[in-house]
Order: sequence, then structure tokens, then C-alpha cells
Amino acid sequence: MIPVRILGTASVLPGPAVTTAELCARVGRDAAEVERKTGIRTRHFAPPGTKASDVAAAALRGALEAAGVEAKALRRILCVTSMGGDVTTPATANRVAAALGLAGSCDAMDLGNACMGFLSAFDLAARSVATGLGPVGIVSVELLSRTTTPEDPRPYLVLGDAAAAAVLGTARPAEGVLGVALGNDGTLPTDVVLENPHVTGKPERMRFLTPSREMTRVALDALLRAARSVLDGAGVALRDVEWVLTHQPNGSMLGAILGAMDVPPERSVRVVDTVGSVGSASLGTGLDRLLRTRPVKPGDRILMVGVGAGVAHGAVLYRVGG
Amino acid sequence: MIPVRILGTASVLPGPAVTTAELCARVGRDAAEVERKTGIRTRHFAPPGTKASDVAAAALRGALEAAGVEAKALRRILCVTSMGGDVTTPATANRVAAALGLAGSCDAMDLGNACMGFLSAFDLAARSVATGLGPVGIVSVELLSRTTTPEDPRPYLVLGDAAAAAVLGTARPAEGVLGVALGNDGTLPTDVVLENPHVTGKPERMRFLTPSREMTRVALDALLRAARSVLDGAGVALRDVEWVLTHQPNGSMLGAILGAMDVPPERSVRVVDTVGSVGSASLGTGLDRLLRTRPVKPGDRILMVGVGAGVAHGAVLYRVGG
Repeated sequence: MIPVRILGTASVLPGPAVTTAELCARVGRDAAEVERKTGIRTRHFAPPGTKASDVAAAALRGALEAAGVEAKALRRILCVTSMGGDVTTPATANRVAAALGLAGSCDAMDLGNACMGFLSAFDLAARSVATGLGPVGIVSVELLSRTTTPEDPRPYLVLGDAAAAAVLGTARPAEGVLGVALGNDGTLPTDVVLENPHVTGKPERMRFLTPSREMTRVALDALLRAARSVLDGAGVALRDVEWVLTHQPNGSMLGAILGAMDVPPERSVRVVDTVGSVGSASLGTGLDRLLRTRPVKPGDRILMVGVGAGVAHGAVLYRVGG
Repeated sequence: MIPVRILGTASVLPGPAVTTAELCARVGRDAAEVERKTGIRTRHFAPPGTKASDVAAAALRGALEAAGVEAKALRRILCVTSMGGDVTTPATANRVAAALGLAGSCDAMDLGNACMGFLSAFDLAARSVATGLGPVGIVSVELLSRTTTPEDPRPYLVLGDAAAAAVLGTARPAEGVLGVALGNDGTLPTDVVLENPHVTGKPERMRFLTPSREMTRVALDALLRAARSVLDGAGVALRDVEWVLTHQPNGSMLGAILGAMDVPPERSVRVVDTVGSVGSASLGTGLDRLLRTRPVKPGDRILMVGVGAGVAHGAVLYRVGG
């Protein structure tokens, strides 16, 4: 076990909710059909000029408040993004730290692993805390509306903006990560890509390269293997896991995951219907909703499973302390 | 101490060496004066079409060979870059893993913290190994020639392309990180910036925003505080540290750092004169040169100090095992 405690979480949805009906009107699609296929009724688009670092800082500030921890106590900030943050260099995390009023009291770095970035950061933060460097703040911030255009409706109709944060610190007895299985398989066909304009020399948009059905099949396969690996390693049966959180790129994939794992909806948390597909912020938003709205009690196990472009995949099994 | 062993290192300079004289001829500057001011005689520019993931994979392959470790033994790959890698999403690290023939046997993620990224990754890799996840491969890859143009000679005349890698694994007795002090201070004026084209909607270049003298003063101050913090924490005097490696943005800053620390040149390794300013790959290239060309022996201490845009700063003190 990696001893670590989730001290607090928070999530932020920047800007007003935008309905699927509004977007469908713009691109000439049938709203009822799109809602049925995507499971998404609303998402949030940050107003023009919104800075990723400000949205991330708001989420991290909320997680610090929930934790009862002062920002200056933080020893590390990991800022996760799939769209490169405010600037390519320096780290957007550097600006998040400054927005929290910090001036060198912790380090700060950016991390990217597509939609798996939150779990990657969670693992790195847990290992930092377990080796004496904590508390650590992790925050996923995605302003994915910056990467879409109505001319390419498939990403435009599902992607949204969000940030989700967690503060991890010293564990109480029998608390922490019971098991972790993370992997990246770049030999699979590229499913989602956002090219780097510093390389291509032109503006780029998020592009979905494979049909939904194929994406779901590959994602589901990777995710189920990761979950099985973690559960087998920890000697825990899935039926004994109280809470299962999954990456939620759309409603049908969420349904497919929970169906394949035979997890009833009341043991999970659905966020995609109101927040849309929010990349690496999806799992963090689900974790925040779980801890704020459900009767999570000491001893409960939380299984977080995810999959992302790459294909990145993995699972983390966490046991709640007293 | 964080128990960890540097199992092997490697560095790669993609493409032919380009002399300062050649570049000065293009921009109408006096080569002798530029060489004197920058301390840079040559740097390497990767040929058009070169992929960051291929250069990174070559460096990591070299480090694995030096370590006598098979790629499939890796449990994690951290790919560091200041220019966003091959693609913004998925992680370039994902492609590095694939280039090494891996298909899900380890996880892989991108990390950015300007020129401090290598030390950030070194710390995260050490903590991963110390908590049971290893070996870990870290690789800094910078194709900074992609971010410059002759129209802005200051970055154009110093930045170069390079990759440097290290494989970290299980420590031998009394081996590992004796101390670490890393910090980011985003309240200082922004010195170097590469805007994110996904945000600005147009191509961007690396820009130096403050005068060299001011950059050197701020960098030196941050770096010396970090070194002092690590040495004091570990109870080691600087005169007893056998090897001192520094980030090398240019020859004069290298000279200023070694001068301020009173470290004679034979206890350090100069790389900037032939590789140029290679961002996060600078410290890794120095580490590789040190371990390949100098009489480093068991018990030796290596102090790595760095500074980068943000301002990011820090130091790591490592003790070589038997």
C-alpha cells in the first residue's frame, strides 16, 4: 500500500452552461438524437480570455478549503492538461502557484497523459507524500472549447471546460492506495489527437480519428484489464468495492463500462450528462462529487478507472481512512 | 534519503553541428562577439521532420543499454519537454514507449517545468522507485530550433536541439537522493515565454523578455538558495561535494554559477559550448557526460542545480552507491 490521504477535493465549471440544443441549432443537428447518443445535455464553455491557471487555482483553492490546509503548506503542485495550458513554457502550474499567492514555497509542474492525466498525477502525488514530500495539490484543468470548432461537430458537441483538484497528504492508519495499474500502449491506432502547432506551424483542433464504436471497444478492453489487474493484485473482489469512478467521455461509454463491470449506478457517480467530456478533469470531477454528495465512510474502497488517447489506461484502488 | 540508483544515462544531439559563425552570417552579427558573450561555438539543429519521440527514444535506448536493462523492464517513462513534444495530446511519452517496442507494459506521461523539467522528473522517478515502481526512464527532449527564427536573434543564436535520458532503479546500500529542494516562483517577472498557440490562435516563438544581466541575477539568486537549502538539509559542505552539475543556458551564466559557488571547473562538466542552450536537456546531458568521462567513484556526491523560466529553481544532491 502507498500510504496517503485525500485531504480534500473540489471542482469548477467555468462560464455558463451551454445546452446540447443550442449547439445542435448552430450545426444543424437533431438535439434529441445527439443527446441520446452522447448522454450529454449541457457542458460549460469558459468565456473568451479565461485563463486555465485561474480556473485551476480556483479548483485547487476549493480543495485546500475542503482539506483545511493553507496554500503555503503545499510542497508540490501538479497541473494536468490536455491542451497545453496558458503557455507552453513556463509551466502553467507555475502560474497556478502564483495565483494562490505562493512565491517559491513549493514546486510546480505540468503533466500530460490525455484523459489519464488525473490518475497519473494522483499516483505521482501519492508517491511524493509517501516519501515525505507533502501535502501535494493536483489539479486537472481543461479548456477544451479552445480546441473545437462547429465545423467539426463530433468533438464540438461533446467537449467541455472544467477543472478538478485534490489535495493529498499524510495517511491515517490503513489508508491509501491499495493497488495501481497504469499503462500506455502507443502501438494501438491513434484515436484522438491534438497536433502541436509549434511543430506543424499552424492552428490545430482536437480530432477524433476512429469511429465511436471502435474507440469504445479499445477503451473498454484496456480499462477492464487495468481494473482486473489492480483488484487481483490487492486481493479485493469488485463486488466488495463500495465505489467505482470511471472516466466519462460520453454517456454511452459510461454505460458500457458500468455494464461490463456489472456495477449498479448507485455505486458510481454520473457527471458527463451535465459537464460533458472534460478530458483529464472527468475523473477528478467524479471524485469530488462522490466525496461531497455520497455517504463515503471509513474503510470504503474507491476504484478509479480510466482510459485516454494514446491509448493510456489504468486503475487506482484507494481505501478511505478513519 | 530517497533510495534510488542511476542505472544508466545517455544523450543525443540530433542533426549536424551548426556553428555560431554560420548563424551570425545569416543574421549579420559578429561571430567572435557572440561566441564571447554566449560561450557557444556550436549547437545541433534536428533536420526538418525529425520527431521528438524518435530522438527521445534514441536517448532512452542509450540509457537502457548503459544500464543493462531491457526496455520491457521499465515501469514508467517520464518525457520532459519545453516545446510540447510531437503532439499536444496524446503524450509524446506514449510515442516514446511505442518507439521502444512497448505496448502497455509501462505508463508514460509528459512533464513540463521549463529548464527544471529534468530535475522535476528525476525527483518523481526517484520517489516512484522508492515506493516500488521501477525501473523508471526519464528523458528530456528539446527541439528548440522549432521555436526560433533568425528574425529574433537572441534565442536563435543560443537555442539548440538535444535529448538526455537516465534510467533509475533500485538502490544499493547508502545510495540515493540525500536532499532535494525544488521550487517555483511565479510572482517574479516572466523571463522566457513560449505562448500556447491553442490559446493565442497563431504560431508562437520562444521569447526572451528580460535583459541577460537581469535573468542571470534572478537565476543565480534562486539557484544558490536551492543549493544552500539542500546542502544544509543534508549536512554536507559544498567543498565536500565531488561533482557539481548546473543548468547551462549560456557560458557566462555557467561561469557566474561556478564562480559564485567557488567550484573549480574540474569538479564540473561544461557542455554549453558545443551543444548550446538545450532547455531541460542541459542538466541531463551534463550528467551523462559526467558519468561517461569522469572518474566518478562509489561514495561521491553529485550536486545538480538548475533554474528555468517561471522562475523554476532547485537542487538535488545524489550519493553514488557501490
